[in-house]
Amino acid sequence: MSRWEPNARGRLEQAALDLYQERGFEQTTVAEIAERAGLTERTFFRYFADKREVLFWGQGRLHEIVVNAVASQPVTASPFNIVVAALEAMAAAVPDRPEFLQQRQAVIAQNPELQERELLKMASLIGVITEALQQRGIPGPTVRLLVETGIAVYRVAFTRWVDEKEKGPRTLPQLLREALDELKAVLAF
Amino acid sequence: MSRWEPNARGRLEQAALDLYQERGFEQTTVAEIAERAGLTERTFFRYFADKREVLFWGQGRLHEIVVNAVASQPVTASPFNIVVAALEAMAAAVPDRPEFLQQRQAVIAQNPELQERELLKMASLIGVITEALQQRGIPGPTVRLLVETGIAVYRVAFTRWVDEKEKGPRTLPQLLREALDELKAVLAF
Repeated sequence: MSRWEPNARGRLEQAALDLYQERGFEQTTVAEIAERAGLTERTFFRYFADKREVLFWGQGRLHEIVVNAVASQPVTASPFNIVVAALEAMAAAVPDRPEFLQQRQAVIAQNPELQERELLKMASLIGVITEALQQRGIPGPTVRLLVETGIAVYRVAFTRWVDEKEKGPRTLPQLLREALDELKAVLAF
Repeated sequence: MSRWEPNARGRLEQAALDLYQERGFEQTTVAEIAERAGLTERTFFRYFADKREVLFWGQGRLHEIVVNAVASQPVTASPFNIVVAALEAMAAAVPDRPEFLQQRQAVIAQNPELQERELLKMASLIGVITEALQQRGIPGPTVRLLVETGIAVYRVAFTRWVDEKEKGPRTLPQLLREALDELKAVLAF
Protein backbone atom coordinates (compact mmCIF):
# COMPACT_ATOMS: atom_id res chain seq x y z
CA MET A 1 0.00 0.00 0.00
CA SER A 2 1.39 3.39 -0.93
CA ARG A 3 2.11 6.05 1.69
CA TRP A 4 -0.33 8.48 0.11
CA GLU A 5 -4.02 7.64 -0.19
CA PRO A 6 -6.63 9.94 -1.74
CA ASN A 7 -8.94 11.45 0.88
CA ALA A 8 -7.66 9.12 3.60
CA ARG A 9 -9.05 11.29 6.39
CA GLY A 10 -12.55 11.38 4.91
CA ARG A 11 -12.58 7.63 4.25
CA LEU A 12 -11.44 6.87 7.80
CA GLU A 13 -14.06 9.20 9.24
CA GLN A 14 -16.87 7.63 7.25
CA ALA A 15 -15.72 4.08 8.04
CA ALA A 16 -15.47 4.94 11.75
CA LEU A 17 -18.93 6.52 11.90
CA ASP A 18 -20.51 3.59 10.05
CA LEU A 19 -18.91 1.14 12.47
CA TYR A 20 -19.80 3.20 15.55
CA GLN A 21 -23.41 3.15 14.39
CA GLU A 22 -23.46 -0.55 13.48
CA ARG A 23 -21.57 -1.95 16.48
CA GLY A 24 -21.38 0.87 19.00
CA PHE A 25 -18.42 3.14 19.74
CA GLU A 26 -17.01 0.95 22.52
CA GLN A 27 -17.05 -2.22 20.43
CA THR A 28 -15.21 -0.75 17.45
CA THR A 29 -11.42 -1.05 17.14
CA VAL A 30 -9.00 1.09 15.16
CA ALA A 31 -8.00 -2.03 13.21
CA GLU A 32 -11.60 -2.49 12.08
CA ILE A 33 -11.91 1.15 11.05
CA ALA A 34 -8.73 0.98 8.98
CA GLU A 35 -9.85 -2.27 7.34
CA ARG A 36 -13.29 -0.88 6.45
CA ALA A 37 -11.63 2.19 4.90
CA GLY A 38 -9.18 -0.01 2.95
CA LEU A 39 -6.24 1.61 4.74
CA THR A 40 -3.69 0.62 7.38
CA GLU A 41 -3.75 1.31 11.10
CA ARG A 42 -0.59 3.32 10.58
CA THR A 43 -2.46 5.60 8.21
CA PHE A 44 -5.23 5.96 10.80
CA PHE A 45 -2.74 7.15 13.41
CA ARG A 46 -1.28 9.65 10.95
CA TYR A 47 -4.60 11.51 11.15
CA PHE A 48 -6.10 10.69 14.54
CA ALA A 49 -4.63 10.10 18.01
CA ASP A 50 -7.39 7.60 18.86
CA LYS A 51 -10.87 6.51 17.82
CA ARG A 52 -12.51 9.28 19.81
CA GLU A 53 -10.62 11.99 17.98
CA VAL A 54 -12.37 10.98 14.76
CA LEU A 55 -15.45 12.68 16.23
CA PHE A 56 -13.72 15.68 17.79
CA TRP A 57 -10.76 16.81 15.70
CA GLY A 58 -10.39 20.43 14.58
CA GLN A 59 -11.44 21.97 17.89
CA GLY A 60 -8.31 24.07 18.31
CA ARG A 61 -8.81 25.56 14.87
CA LEU A 62 -12.46 26.33 15.64
CA HIS A 63 -11.39 28.24 18.76
CA GLU A 64 -8.97 30.30 16.72
CA ILE A 65 -11.62 31.05 14.10
CA VAL A 66 -14.07 32.27 16.73
CA VAL A 67 -11.50 34.39 18.57
CA ASN A 68 -10.35 35.97 15.31
CA ALA A 69 -13.92 36.70 14.22
CA VAL A 70 -14.59 38.58 17.46
CA ALA A 71 -11.24 40.38 17.40
CA SER A 72 -11.76 41.61 13.84
CA GLN A 73 -15.04 43.39 14.65
CA PRO A 74 -14.78 47.18 14.68
CA VAL A 75 -14.77 48.85 18.11
CA THR A 76 -18.14 50.37 17.22
CA ALA A 77 -19.80 46.94 16.71
CA SER A 78 -22.77 46.29 19.01
CA PRO A 79 -22.48 43.39 21.50
CA PHE A 80 -25.13 41.49 19.58
CA ASN A 81 -23.31 41.89 16.28
CA ILE A 82 -20.12 40.60 17.86
CA VAL A 83 -21.94 37.46 18.97
CA VAL A 84 -23.46 37.11 15.50
CA ALA A 85 -19.99 37.39 13.97
CA ALA A 86 -18.72 34.61 16.27
CA LEU A 87 -21.66 32.35 15.42
CA GLU A 88 -21.34 33.02 11.70
CA ALA A 89 -17.65 32.16 11.82
CA MET A 90 -18.52 28.91 13.63
CA ALA A 91 -21.22 28.10 11.07
CA ALA A 92 -18.89 28.82 8.15
CA ALA A 93 -16.23 26.53 9.64
CA VAL A 94 -18.56 23.51 9.83
CA PRO A 95 -17.96 21.17 6.86
CA ASP A 96 -20.89 21.24 4.43
CA ARG A 97 -21.85 17.59 5.08
CA PRO A 98 -25.08 17.60 7.06
CA GLU A 99 -25.77 13.86 6.63
CA PHE A 100 -22.35 13.09 8.05
CA LEU A 101 -22.90 15.42 10.99
CA GLN A 102 -26.34 13.97 11.63
CA GLN A 103 -24.77 10.51 11.78
CA ARG A 104 -22.11 11.88 14.14
CA GLN A 105 -24.79 13.29 16.44
CA ALA A 106 -26.62 9.95 16.49
CA VAL A 107 -23.42 8.16 17.53
CA ILE A 108 -22.70 10.69 20.28
CA ALA A 109 -26.29 10.51 21.59
CA GLN A 110 -25.82 6.78 22.25
CA ASN A 111 -22.74 7.08 24.44
CA PRO A 112 -22.60 9.02 27.76
CA GLU A 113 -18.81 9.45 27.61
CA LEU A 114 -19.06 11.00 24.12
CA GLN A 115 -21.98 13.17 25.22
CA GLU A 116 -19.88 14.55 28.04
CA ARG A 117 -17.03 15.25 25.64
CA GLU A 118 -19.45 17.08 23.30
CA LEU A 119 -20.84 19.16 26.18
CA LEU A 120 -17.29 20.07 27.23
CA LYS A 121 -16.53 21.11 23.66
CA MET A 122 -19.59 23.38 23.61
CA ALA A 123 -18.79 24.79 27.06
CA SER A 124 -15.27 25.54 25.91
CA LEU A 125 -16.53 27.41 22.84
CA ILE A 126 -18.98 29.37 24.99
CA GLY A 127 -16.06 30.24 27.26
CA VAL A 128 -14.03 31.55 24.33
CA ILE A 129 -16.85 33.78 23.09
CA THR A 130 -17.62 35.00 26.62
CA GLU A 131 -14.01 35.94 27.30
CA ALA A 132 -13.68 37.75 23.99
CA LEU A 133 -16.79 39.82 24.77
CA GLN A 134 -15.70 40.62 28.31
CA GLN A 135 -12.36 41.85 27.01
CA ARG A 136 -14.37 44.43 25.08
CA GLY A 137 -15.79 45.75 28.33
CA ILE A 138 -19.31 44.37 27.87
CA PRO A 139 -20.79 43.67 31.34
CA GLY A 140 -20.82 40.02 32.47
CA PRO A 141 -24.59 39.56 32.86
CA THR A 142 -25.25 40.94 29.37
CA VAL A 143 -22.52 38.75 27.91
CA ARG A 144 -24.12 35.68 29.42
CA LEU A 145 -27.55 36.60 28.07
CA LEU A 146 -26.19 37.22 24.58
CA VAL A 147 -24.08 34.09 24.45
CA GLU A 148 -26.77 31.76 25.84
CA THR A 149 -29.34 33.14 23.41
CA GLY A 150 -26.89 33.04 20.52
CA ILE A 151 -26.00 29.41 21.17
CA ALA A 152 -29.70 28.50 21.41
CA VAL A 153 -30.31 30.07 17.98
CA TYR A 154 -27.22 28.37 16.57
CA ARG A 155 -28.45 24.98 17.77
CA VAL A 156 -31.88 25.56 16.22
CA ALA A 157 -30.26 26.52 12.90
CA PHE A 158 -27.99 23.48 13.08
CA THR A 159 -30.92 21.13 13.70
CA ARG A 160 -32.86 22.68 10.81
CA TRP A 161 -29.84 22.24 8.61
CA VAL A 162 -29.30 18.54 9.31
CA ASP A 163 -33.07 17.83 9.26
CA GLU A 164 -34.08 19.86 6.23
CA LYS A 165 -31.22 19.32 3.84
CA GLU A 166 -33.32 17.33 1.39
CA LYS A 167 -36.01 19.99 1.11
CA GLY A 168 -33.80 22.93 0.25
CA PRO A 169 -30.04 23.06 0.04
CA ARG A 170 -29.51 26.13 2.19
CA THR A 171 -26.15 26.41 3.91
CA LEU A 172 -25.71 26.51 7.68
CA PRO A 173 -24.66 30.19 7.65
CA GLN A 174 -27.83 31.01 5.67
CA LEU A 175 -30.04 29.13 8.12
CA LEU A 176 -28.29 30.83 11.03
CA ARG A 177 -28.95 34.25 9.53
CA GLU A 178 -32.60 33.32 8.90
CA ALA A 179 -33.07 32.09 12.47
CA LEU A 180 -31.56 35.31 13.88
CA ASP A 181 -33.84 37.42 11.69
CA GLU A 182 -36.81 35.27 12.66
CA LEU A 183 -36.00 35.72 16.36
CA LYS A 184 -35.85 39.49 15.93
CA ALA A 185 -39.22 39.40 14.15
CA VAL A 186 -40.99 37.27 16.77
CA LEU A 187 -39.55 39.37 19.62
CA ALA A 188 -40.74 42.57 17.96
CA PHE A 189 -44.41 42.12 18.91
CA MET B 1 -43.00 12.57 68.92
CA SER B 2 -46.29 14.04 67.77
CA ARG B 3 -47.73 13.18 64.36
CA TRP B 4 -47.73 16.79 63.30
CA GLU B 5 -44.50 18.76 63.14
CA PRO B 6 -44.26 22.41 62.11
CA ASN B 7 -42.75 22.82 58.63
CA ALA B 8 -41.67 19.18 58.49
CA ARG B 9 -41.21 19.25 54.71
CA GLY B 10 -38.96 22.32 54.82
CA ARG B 11 -36.86 20.91 57.68
CA LEU B 12 -36.41 17.59 55.89
CA GLU B 13 -35.43 19.36 52.67
CA GLN B 14 -32.84 21.52 54.40
CA ALA B 15 -31.42 18.59 56.38
CA ALA B 16 -31.20 16.49 53.20
CA LEU B 17 -29.46 19.22 51.20
CA ASP B 18 -26.97 19.91 53.99
CA LEU B 19 -26.11 16.21 54.22
CA TYR B 20 -25.90 15.77 50.44
CA GLN B 21 -23.41 18.62 50.38
CA GLU B 22 -21.39 17.43 53.38
CA ARG B 23 -21.26 13.70 52.60
CA GLY B 24 -22.44 13.36 49.03
CA PHE B 25 -25.85 12.25 47.81
CA GLU B 26 -24.93 8.56 47.55
CA GLN B 27 -23.54 8.37 51.08
CA THR B 28 -26.59 9.90 52.78
CA THR B 29 -29.39 7.71 54.17
CA VAL B 30 -33.00 8.60 54.87
CA ALA B 31 -32.39 7.74 58.53
CA GLU B 32 -29.65 10.37 58.70
CA ILE B 33 -31.83 12.99 57.05
CA ALA B 34 -34.67 12.37 59.50
CA GLU B 35 -32.29 12.48 62.46
CA ARG B 36 -30.72 15.75 61.33
CA ALA B 37 -34.19 17.28 60.93
CA GLY B 38 -35.24 16.01 64.38
CA LEU B 39 -38.00 13.91 62.80
CA THR B 40 -38.70 10.23 62.20
CA GLU B 41 -38.15 8.20 59.05
CA ARG B 42 -41.88 7.65 58.98
CA THR B 43 -42.40 11.40 58.74
CA PHE B 44 -39.86 11.55 55.92
CA PHE B 45 -41.83 8.99 53.92
CA ARG B 46 -45.03 10.93 54.49
CA TYR B 47 -43.55 13.67 52.29
CA PHE B 48 -41.07 11.97 49.96
CA ALA B 49 -40.98 8.59 48.20
CA ASP B 50 -37.17 8.45 48.45
CA LYS B 51 -34.12 10.65 48.99
CA ARG B 52 -34.03 11.67 45.33
CA GLU B 53 -37.54 13.05 45.43
CA VAL B 54 -36.40 15.67 47.96
CA LEU B 55 -34.70 17.37 45.02
CA PHE B 56 -37.40 16.82 42.41
CA TRP B 57 -40.86 16.96 43.98
CA GLY B 58 -43.57 19.20 42.58
CA GLN B 59 -42.85 18.46 38.93
CA GLY B 60 -46.37 17.33 38.08
CA ARG B 61 -47.76 20.57 39.49
CA LEU B 62 -45.24 22.61 37.51
CA HIS B 63 -46.41 20.91 34.30
CA GLU B 64 -50.00 21.78 35.09
CA ILE B 65 -49.10 25.39 35.82
CA VAL B 66 -47.28 25.76 32.50
CA VAL B 67 -50.03 24.07 30.47
CA ASN B 68 -52.68 26.26 32.12
CA ALA B 69 -50.67 29.43 31.54
CA VAL B 70 -50.45 28.67 27.82
CA ALA B 71 -54.10 27.59 27.56
CA SER B 72 -55.33 30.78 29.23
CA GLN B 73 -53.67 33.06 26.67
CA PRO B 74 -56.12 34.75 24.27
CA VAL B 75 -56.25 33.35 20.72
CA THR B 76 -54.79 36.66 19.52
CA ALA B 77 -51.65 36.32 21.67
CA SER B 78 -48.41 36.30 19.65
CA PRO B 79 -46.28 33.12 19.78
CA PHE B 80 -43.61 35.01 21.70
CA ASN B 81 -46.08 36.23 24.31
CA ILE B 82 -47.34 32.68 24.80
CA VAL B 83 -43.81 31.52 25.55
CA VAL B 84 -43.32 34.47 27.89
CA ALA B 85 -46.53 33.54 29.71
CA ALA B 86 -45.27 29.97 30.15
CA LEU B 87 -41.88 31.15 31.46
CA GLU B 88 -43.47 33.68 33.81
CA ALA B 89 -45.74 30.99 35.22
CA MET B 90 -42.69 28.77 35.77
CA ALA B 91 -40.81 31.62 37.45
CA ALA B 92 -43.75 32.46 39.70
CA ALA B 93 -44.03 28.80 40.78
CA VAL B 94 -40.41 28.60 41.98
CA PRO B 95 -40.21 29.01 45.78
CA ASP B 96 -38.64 32.33 46.75
CA ARG B 97 -35.57 30.71 48.35
CA PRO B 98 -32.61 31.38 46.07
CA GLU B 99 -29.96 30.24 48.60
CA PHE B 100 -31.75 26.92 48.94
CA LEU B 101 -31.99 26.49 45.16
CA GLN B 102 -28.33 27.41 44.73
CA GLN B 103 -27.43 24.70 47.22
CA ARG B 104 -29.69 22.27 45.33
CA GLN B 105 -27.90 23.08 42.06
CA ALA B 106 -24.50 22.51 43.68
CA VAL B 107 -25.60 19.07 44.90
CA ILE B 108 -26.97 18.12 41.48
CA ALA B 109 -23.81 19.31 39.73
CA GLN B 110 -21.77 16.81 41.74
CA ASN B 111 -23.74 13.71 40.75
CA PRO B 112 -24.15 12.46 37.15
CA GLU B 113 -27.34 10.52 37.96
CA LEU B 114 -28.96 13.65 39.44
CA GLN B 115 -27.74 15.74 36.52
CA GLU B 116 -29.44 13.36 34.13
CA ARG B 117 -32.65 13.56 36.15
CA GLU B 118 -32.48 17.36 36.05
CA LEU B 119 -31.93 17.36 32.28
CA LEU B 120 -34.91 15.03 31.86
CA LYS B 121 -37.01 17.37 33.97
CA MET B 122 -36.04 20.33 31.77
CA ALA B 123 -36.61 18.32 28.58
CA SER B 124 -40.03 17.33 29.83
CA LEU B 125 -40.97 20.97 30.54
CA ILE B 126 -39.70 21.99 27.10
CA GLY B 127 -41.87 19.21 25.64
CA VAL B 128 -44.95 20.53 27.45
CA ILE B 129 -44.45 24.09 26.20
CA THR B 130 -43.67 22.88 22.67
CA GLU B 131 -46.80 20.75 22.49
CA ALA B 132 -48.98 23.54 23.82
CA LEU B 133 -47.65 25.91 21.14
CA GLN B 134 -48.04 23.39 18.33
CA GLN B 135 -51.66 22.83 19.34
CA ARG B 136 -52.16 26.52 18.58
CA GLY B 137 -51.02 25.95 15.01
CA ILE B 138 -47.64 27.65 15.33
CA PRO B 139 -45.21 25.95 12.88
CA GLY B 140 -42.75 23.47 14.41
CA PRO B 141 -39.49 25.24 13.45
CA THR B 142 -40.71 28.53 14.91
CA VAL B 143 -41.85 26.79 18.08
CA ARG B 144 -38.42 25.29 18.55
CA LEU B 145 -36.69 28.63 18.06
CA LEU B 146 -39.00 30.36 20.53
CA VAL B 147 -38.77 27.66 23.17
CA GLU B 148 -34.98 27.24 22.97
CA THR B 149 -34.47 30.99 23.18
CA GLY B 150 -37.02 31.34 25.97
CA ILE B 151 -35.38 28.64 28.05
CA ALA B 152 -31.95 30.24 27.51
CA VAL B 153 -33.29 33.55 28.84
CA TYR B 154 -34.99 31.79 31.74
CA ARG B 155 -31.73 30.11 32.73
CA VAL B 156 -29.86 33.41 32.59
CA ALA B 157 -32.52 35.05 34.81
CA PHE B 158 -32.39 32.11 37.21
CA THR B 159 -28.60 32.31 37.51
CA ARG B 160 -28.78 36.06 38.12
CA TRP B 161 -31.38 35.47 40.77
CA VAL B 162 -29.39 32.91 42.77
CA ASP B 163 -26.11 34.82 42.27
CA GLU B 164 -27.32 38.36 42.87
CA LYS B 165 -29.82 37.99 45.67
CA GLU B 166 -27.60 39.80 48.17
CA LYS B 167 -27.24 42.89 46.02
CA GLY B 168 -30.89 43.52 45.34
CA PRO B 169 -33.89 41.47 46.38
CA ARG B 170 -35.58 41.27 43.01
CA THR B 171 -37.87 38.30 42.44
CA LEU B 172 -37.30 35.67 39.75
CA PRO B 173 -40.32 36.88 37.71
CA GLN B 174 -38.88 40.43 37.79
CA LEU B 175 -35.45 39.24 36.66
CA LEU B 176 -37.06 37.17 33.90
CA ARG B 177 -38.98 40.19 32.63
CA GLU B 178 -35.81 42.31 32.76
CA ALA B 179 -33.80 39.70 30.84
CA LEU B 180 -36.51 39.47 28.15
CA ASP B 181 -36.58 43.27 27.79
CA GLU B 182 -32.79 43.35 27.70
CA LEU B 183 -32.72 40.73 24.96
CA LYS B 184 -35.19 42.76 22.90
CA ALA B 185 -33.01 45.84 23.37
CA VAL B 186 -29.71 44.18 22.39
CA LEU B 187 -31.32 42.52 19.37
CA ALA B 188 -32.73 45.85 18.18
CA PHE B 189 -29.43 47.21 16.90
